[in-house]
Amino acid sequence: MPEPAADRRTVEVRVELKPGIVDAEAETVQKALGLLGVPSVRHVSTAHIYDLEFERVSAEEARRLAQEAVDRLLANPVIHRVTIVVPPA
Amino acid sequence: MPEPAADRRTVEVRVELKPGIVDAEAETVQKALGLLGVPSVRHVSTAHIYDLEFERVSAEEARRLAQEAVDRLLANPVIHRVTIVVPPA
Repeated sequence: MPEPAADRRTVEVRVELKPGIVDAEAETVQKALGLLGVPSVRHVSTAHIYDLEFERVSAEEARRLAQEAVDRLLANPVIHRVTIVVPPA
Repeated sequence: MPEPAADRRTVEVRVELKPGIVDAEAETVQKALGLLGVPSVRHVSTAHIYDLEFERVSAEEARRLAQEAVDRLLANPVIHRVTIVVPPA
């Protein structure tokens, strides 16, 4: 059976802070939850998602383009850890 | 076989804008990618992830607590769509 033509492909780019970098937003959320009466949250971490939709590109090409977007715009390699998830064709 | 004691459980809360609400950050990213030479991105959307770690709670209780955190702090029901993912026990 031939592979169906993948017309559109949405790549998920997850950008989070590297371990050791203080996640101020997460700390604030955790503190606020304690004050609001949800104290059982032991740890909070945050991440930012960019869903990039490509048209008429292969999975490999989509990953390459997403990596280029990360390198040029979406993340700072000094502080960010990035995960790119390409859906299977 | 008894269920293993789930000591820690991390619930993922995904907060994104509802359809129809302008995602200004996504639009800026898409425009910038075009200017930077990654023009093949047809659409961008963004989301914010909060990973909430609970200790010694059941999956049901973790979901309930995460929903409470969403209702009281993490999202605005007027503009946000929220997805809560609880890992299986």
